[in-house]
Amino acid sequence: MSSAGKNIHNLAKKLWPLNRSLSGNGVRESFQIIKKIIPELQIHEVSSGKKVFDWNIPKEWNVKEAWIKTPSGKKICDFSVNNLHLLGYSIPVHRKLTLVELQQKLYTHEIDEAIPYRTSYYNEDWGFCLSKNEFISLEEGLYEVFIDSELKQGSLTYGELLIKGQTEEEIFFSTYICHPSMANNELSGPCLTTYLAKFILSEKRLKSYRIIFIPETIGSINYISDNLPVLKERMFAGFNMTCVGDNRCFSYLPSRNGNTVSDLYSKKILDDLVGDYKKYTWLDRGSDERQYCSPGVDLPVSSIMRSKFGEYPEYHTSLDDLTNLVTEEGFSSSYIFYKGLIEAVDSHCYPKSIFLCEPNLGKRGLYPLLSGGKKDVSIKLLKNVLSYCDGELSIVEISIKVESKYVDTLQAVNKLNRAGLVSLN
Amino acid sequence: MSSAGKNIHNLAKKLWPLNRSLSGNGVRESFQIIKKIIPELQIHEVSSGKKVFDWNIPKEWNVKEAWIKTPSGKKICDFSVNNLHLLGYSIPVHRKLTLVELQQKLYTHEIDEAIPYRTSYYNEDWGFCLSKNEFISLEEGLYEVFIDSELKQGSLTYGELLIKGQTEEEIFFSTYICHPSMANNELSGPCLTTYLAKFILSEKRLKSYRIIFIPETIGSINYISDNLPVLKERMFAGFNMTCVGDNRCFSYLPSRNGNTVSDLYSKKILDDLVGDYKKYTWLDRGSDERQYCSPGVDLPVSSIMRSKFGEYPEYHTSLDDLTNLVTEEGFSSSYIFYKGLIEAVDSHCYPKSIFLCEPNLGKRGLYPLLSGGKKDVSIKLLKNVLSYCDGELSIVEISIKVESKYVDTLQAVNKLNRAGLVSLN
Amino acid sequence: MSSAGKNIHNLAKKLWPLNRSLSGNGVRESFQIIKKIIPELQIHEVSSGKKVFDWNIPKEWNVKEAWIKTPSGKKICDFSVNNLHLLGYSIPVHRKLTLVELQQKLYTHEIDEAIPYRTSYYNEDWGFCLSKNEFISLEEGLYEVFIDSELKQGSLTYGELLIKGQTEEEIFFSTYICHPSMANNELSGPCLTTYLAKFILSEKRLKSYRIIFIPETIGSINYISDNLPVLKERMFAGFNMTCVGDNRCFSYLPSRNGNTVSDLYSKKILDDLVGDYKKYTWLDRGSDERQYCSPGVDLPVSSIMRSKFGEYPEYHTSLDDLTNLVTEEGFSSSYIFYKGLIEAVDSHCYPKSIFLCEPNLGKRGLYPLLSGGKKDVSIKLLKNVLSYCDGELSIVEISIKVESKYVDTLQAVNKLNRAGLVSLN
Repeated sequence: MSSAGKNIHNLAKKLWPLNRSLSGNGVRESFQIIKKIIPELQIHEVSSGKKVFDWNIPKEWNVKEAWIKTPSGKKICDFSVNNLHLLGYSIPVHRKLTLVELQQKLYTHEIDEAIPYRTSYYNEDWGFCLSKNEFISLEEGLYEVFIDSELKQGSLTYGELLIKGQTEEEIFFSTYICHPSMANNELSGPCLTTYLAKFILSEKRLKSYRIIFIPETIGSINYISDNLPVLKERMFAGFNMTCVGDNRCFSYLPSRNGNTVSDLYSKKILDDLVGDYKKYTWLDRGSDERQYCSPGVDLPVSSIMRSKFGEYPEYHTSLDDLTNLVTEEGFSSSYIFYKGLIEAVDSHCYPKSIFLCEPNLGKRGLYPLLSGGKKDVSIKLLKNVLSYCDGELSIVEISIKVESKYVDTLQAVNKLNRAGLVSLN
Repeated sequence: MSSAGKNIHNLAKKLWPLNRSLSGNGVRESFQIIKKIIPELQIHEVSSGKKVFDWNIPKEWNVKEAWIKTPSGKKICDFSVNNLHLLGYSIPVHRKLTLVELQQKLYTHEIDEAIPYRTSYYNEDWGFCLSKNEFISLEEGLYEVFIDSELKQGSLTYGELLIKGQTEEEIFFSTYICHPSMANNELSGPCLTTYLAKFILSEKRLKSYRIIFIPETIGSINYISDNLPVLKERMFAGFNMTCVGDNRCFSYLPSRNGNTVSDLYSKKILDDLVGDYKKYTWLDRGSDERQYCSPGVDLPVSSIMRSKFGEYPEYHTSLDDLTNLVTEEGFSSSYIFYKGLIEAVDSHCYPKSIFLCEPNLGKRGLYPLLSGGKKDVSIKLLKNVLSYCDGELSIVEISIKVESKYVDTLQAVNKLNRAGLVSLN
Repeated sequence: MSSAGKNIHNLAKKLWPLNRSLSGNGVRESFQIIKKIIPELQIHEVSSGKKVFDWNIPKEWNVKEAWIKTPSGKKICDFSVNNLHLLGYSIPVHRKLTLVELQQKLYTHEIDEAIPYRTSYYNEDWGFCLSKNEFISLEEGLYEVFIDSELKQGSLTYGELLIKGQTEEEIFFSTYICHPSMANNELSGPCLTTYLAKFILSEKRLKSYRIIFIPETIGSINYISDNLPVLKERMFAGFNMTCVGDNRCFSYLPSRNGNTVSDLYSKKILDDLVGDYKKYTWLDRGSDERQYCSPGVDLPVSSIMRSKFGEYPEYHTSLDDLTNLVTEEGFSSSYIFYKGLIEAVDSHCYPKSIFLCEPNLGKRGLYPLLSGGKKDVSIKLLKNVLSYCDGELSIVEISIKVESKYVDTLQAVNKLNRAGLVSLN
């Protein structure tokens, strides 16, 4: 296991207690921690009320304190213990309610011990979330409810990292930082993406990179609203980074079109590095691919996840944690996968044979001079790859034709290129 | 069961005894009965001898009387009892023959009790059709044969109904009225089509409609000869209406191309409303699709039948009747199917999302404002449909993508349209 | 069995003892024998050293004598007994060696009794090939090695036969004459091709033909280098003729593109005449298709073989013989297959119906005038074929659509053409 898994998991632990939501100081504090790893990250603020397509940027939300005091004086649903206890975007409240009145404002989950994650972003409301176990143990009597929150004309915060490569073509990663204390969905996305950004920055790349850390839905809508022409012009391949931390099976969710460059690489590198993985369809979508692939936007964005949002029992509850679900091993294997994916997409090109007909490999030491001996596998691959270097097939397409892994095909192409037999376009 | 089944069956019973053929008064009388239900039907006469492509309109044929008198004086093969007894287009004859001579002019069927349907349109001849049972019981002796028919330079009669909708694009139905007393093939076609025409006329339609009642083969050839440019320009989808009255399984026969709009709707609405149906290929063709889809004509015409011509034992015999084979139930279920088909094709359009990115469904009451609750199926469908409203996919294509019935998809599109979220092009 | 099998086998027997290689007098003598059957064959000489793409034409190689004398004075590995004993392109040598020294220059095969076929075209070297049985029986002591060969600036010899047909479009056959005494790979290719050329010359053809007899690899590279524009302009379909003499199963190796006219005909005629055959892929290639289908050359060349090179145990050994492996029966069935293939490709055209709608077949005696009788299969085929004569589908494509053999479809097309119902374009 690489040390990356441990580092990413540590980052997730640091970010865990902060109250991330569509906006607010929890998001800003999270970015300060992330910037320690990738200082190049630019932080942007978007004013509340700004019109973005059919939406408006919501008010900024901050919480100082929130709890319920039981008739017997016990403090429960304490936001300072677990920020999932508070319905996201709850307005300030301070009042006394009977148990029956209170129950109208409480949310539980079908798993008895799970605190659910619930929000009310676009309808001013308040509420508390707690486990069913705690809910059913509530005594009769008068409860004191206290929420010291603020909804104000402020701003929504997001991060953007642009990395220039040799070409303007961009590989895009988008991840969301709006979810509070949950691990797979969604500390895993920003934490893994942070370390992948660090990896990308570690050496010169052929492609350029655009990596954004945004609140889900409104964040991607805002970003598209501000950047659509440049995204359409430059995006070569894009990936929505979510649910990448647990160590269960890999999952693939295609773009709406299903046949973009991103889909091609996603499937090939999953085949190469993972083998067995769960294939979803566009009808199973649910994250920011909904915006990136929406009609008229149509960016080449696919998603490669571990356990997909909505498909694992701990999803959107306090059980989506950094102990049992998201582990160093999970991060490590996701990191290795994405490094392979990035190296593949970054090396995308259309190799073209320089000579008509087969070149004389023997005189270049690439083929035995005496006929009839056993050829090793790498010679066979070299000739197969060369036979498809027509300047119209990309390396990934060639690798599928020759039934080899991308890295082996790339290696053959590079060998042919060094021997002066193919050009890379 | 709707009352339509009963009405259509009644119409078939009224038309049953008339001697329909390529031409003649039986056809004209049939049209008078049909016009009582759809008075808008225009009747056309085409002169005998008119050249249509490689053919000529045949002479007009009428029959007053036809029978055989046995040696013992019994009248058999009486045309007034069953017009199938007379070989179609028989010339006038009055003569005496021995049994052996007569047998050369008699036609039977492999089913012992069935009178076969035989014709000799393009070779002047005469003959009688009778059951094998009757044939083998014929006694030795001299027979008197009498056919009081007329073949003259007259005309061929056909019906045409043009219904203007909001667009010039036409949905085409063609059915044939040349078959005498047989039920599935072919009183079912004209009778069902008559009531479908009445249904189409019952309200304003988006598409225009062109519905023709013609004799098979020569009728469609004549119609194409007269109307090919307008058919090619306006026909959006077309259906050949035959064998639609028995209550056995549904059958689908594609256009020659196999991939026209008609085929798309045929298959989708069969999937939606029928489920299991028999799929034939172009090599199984045999009715007027032979002309509509012939090379250079290539109109988008498919056929949705019940028991296909040539594939059921009663085909082209006196057993193809209105008692045992073609029933009110059969007509009723065909009527319901075709209504669904018409409503689908008539609503064909390319919905387009008005906003880039997902619109805010919550503020329009189309999506729950509180996150995390159970979404009902219709909300999921609404979002799926919306995700495909790119102005390039038609509703039927979207319905296939979202794996829903056409009507449910249409309903979702209409809901989105009323909410100002999609335009209909 | 046709006499062709016997004739082809006889030719192979005559050519058997000659020492064919990339160049030399064995090749020239072989052509003199072939020219007795097809005097129209043109013989070309290409000078050693000529640059062809990434290669140079090698020196000319001739051998007078070659053998090893054992310590006990026995002559072994005698070139005059079997020219496989000498490593192809061996330089002259006369020296004495110990057994250990000699063993470095000896080549055996995994089959104990097989003499392998080995060459060293592009690296000056020498060696002998012998059976493992003989190898292990070699005694200790001093061996005399004698090779009286010559490598000189001479020329490479190839044959070319251009046959003019009614159109300039060419059907191309390429076979290689560089292999010494082996039967399937490769006396079978030139011998069968010789008799196919005689067949092609036997009557007037629609297409033109280009048939070449070349040394493998360098020969095709040289030919492409000299003729690429004309090959690209005129080649309608091409076939690499190799391994066509044994009577085992048929094999098909597609062009690189996999979907050329050659592939279409190869598969259809194999389906029609053979039924079960082994399908290889481009990754299994290994003969001159490597050049004809290389990127930028991309000629429509596929291969139909019997046992494919590299896939049968006797391959490239003395066991690939005219006794047990390549037989008159094998040649006969290959000849029959290729005749069928040639007749099919030669008749390629796009039949087009002259009349819109179905023509009146009855008045032309092509269809019964009385309805309702049993139609025979040929009438059904005629109508099916006619229904696809749209001027855009070729006969081979129509034959696939109507699920009939090519010859039956062609016969129907010709019948329709004679009846004035379709034109042939």
